[in-house]
This record gives sequence, C-alpha cells and structure tokens, in this order.
Amino acid sequence: MDRAEARGRFAAARVARLATADFSGQPHLVAICFALDGDTLYTAVDQKPKTTMSLRRLKNLTMNSRCSMLVDHYEDDDWERLWWVRADGAGRELRADEPERERALELLLERYERYRRDAPAGPVIAVDVERWVGWAAAGGP
Amino acid sequence: MDRAEARGRFAAARVARLATADFSGQPHLVAICFALDGDTLYTAVDQKPKTTMSLRRLKNLTMNSRCSMLVDHYEDDDWERLWWVRADGAGRELRADEPERERALELLLERYERYRRDAPAGPVIAVDVERWVGWAAAGGP
Repeated sequence: MDRAEARGRFAAARVARLATADFSGQPHLVAICFALDGDTLYTAVDQKPKTTMSLRRLKNLTMNSRCSMLVDHYEDDDWERLWWVRADGAGRELRADEPERERALELLLERYERYRRDAPAGPVIAVDVERWVGWAAAGGP
Repeated sequence: MDRAEARGRFAAARVARLATADFSGQPHLVAICFALDGDTLYTAVDQKPKTTMSLRRLKNLTMNSRCSMLVDHYEDDDWERLWWVRADGAGRELRADEPERERALELLLERYERYRRDAPAGPVIAVDVERWVGWAAAGGP
C-alpha cells in the first residue's frame, strides 16, 4: 500500500488509537477521535482532565514527543479484507492562545456531529505525521 | 469500571492493539488477534517475518518488555455507548521449545476459526498483564 492510499484510509476512519511513551519506555494507549489537515492530525481531550491518568498522553508528549497511531479493519469471517494503517510522528500540545488550536477545533467540529453539540473543553494535541504505512491482506504484505 | 468487567470486555473482543516501544521511546502499534489465559495474553505472528518492519514488536520487546494493549468500542451516532479497556503489562517472546508456546497456539486456534485452517507460523508473544483499566461513557469516567 502506498503512502497516499495509507493516508486516505486513515483519513476516512472515525476512530484511531494513539500510542505515546514516557521516558522509561512505558507505552500508553488511548482511542481518539481526530481530524487531519494535510499531514497534521488533531485530537482533543473531551473534558478538562480530572485525574492524573487522563493526562498521561499529555505528560508523555511533554517528555517524549514520539508517537504512533493506528487505524485497522477486522472481519472475523474474511481475513482477506483485513487492513491497517499506521502513522508515526511527533506530538505537541496546542496552547489555548494558539491560532492552530482554533483551526484544530473547527476541523474536529466539522467532522464529528457530536462535537457540535458539546465542543471538547480539554487540551488539543497536534501530531505532525512523518510516515504513513499500511498493509492490506488482499494486496499482500 | 472494575477490573473484572474491564478484563471481561477485553476478553470478548476479537481484535486488540498492541503498543511497544524501543529504548529511544519510539512507540510502535500493531493490530493483534489474541487469546487470554487468566492474566496472560497470547498473540502470534501469522507468517515468518520477512522484513525488519514486521519484527519491530519483537525487537522492541527484547529491548523493553513494557507494553500496552487496547480494545475500544466506537459508535458515531451514540457516544453514550463508547467504551475502552486498556491492559498494561510485560511481554516476552515464547521459544519454539517452550510448552507454553504450544498451549498459546491451542488457545489461539480454539478462538479463531481462520487459524485452524492456517496456523500461525511465526513467533508467539506472551504478555503478562499487570493492570486492567477501563472506561464506559454510560458508566461515567
């Protein structure tokens, strides 16, 4: 699967998973809603974080900007239709006063009807994707 | 969501995502089929790895056993039904001569019809899960 197809499949997905890691190498995983602008992915924290746990992704990105995101398709009865796309890049938190944060929220509201009723109130993360890689069973590995 | 419910929801899923990290802190993500035996998760590499890339998860686990796995449920039109479960633990590759490897393959073949036609030929990974955590929208964060 080439880069354009990988990006295209990722862009069409409604949910992805974001992996970050702290400086000790402990990975952390969350499911995310997201919007893409070129090779930059935006994702927001829905509520203001209440606990340490919900801040893990942000703490990790402060220590270590490297992250990886995955979209995959699974079908129990037809493994010929399996595929996945991975995006690797560097993440950063957008400050409240950054114009990019507003743009990110616009894109997220455009994409998710649910956000238009209840806009995300928490921090916004931008990930600059450096690499799109994908695999589809039908296309061969 | 308590530990038992978190584990139960994870156990019922057909696909999960596995995050590992190398010693530089670069996370890596793959979609996995898996079987659980108590608090140990097993997952196999379908084919003998052909490229460096497909070995990344194994290389990472050799350097750094820490890993995180996620199962999530998303529905575009009803965010009250969203949930996720995360399992954190330590991963290790099972050697070809280990009895645990055979047991792992038995469990995987039991769980996935597709594996019974075409048993995974590659390495098998065991993850000793130390922590099951979950969240469900309906239950509140």
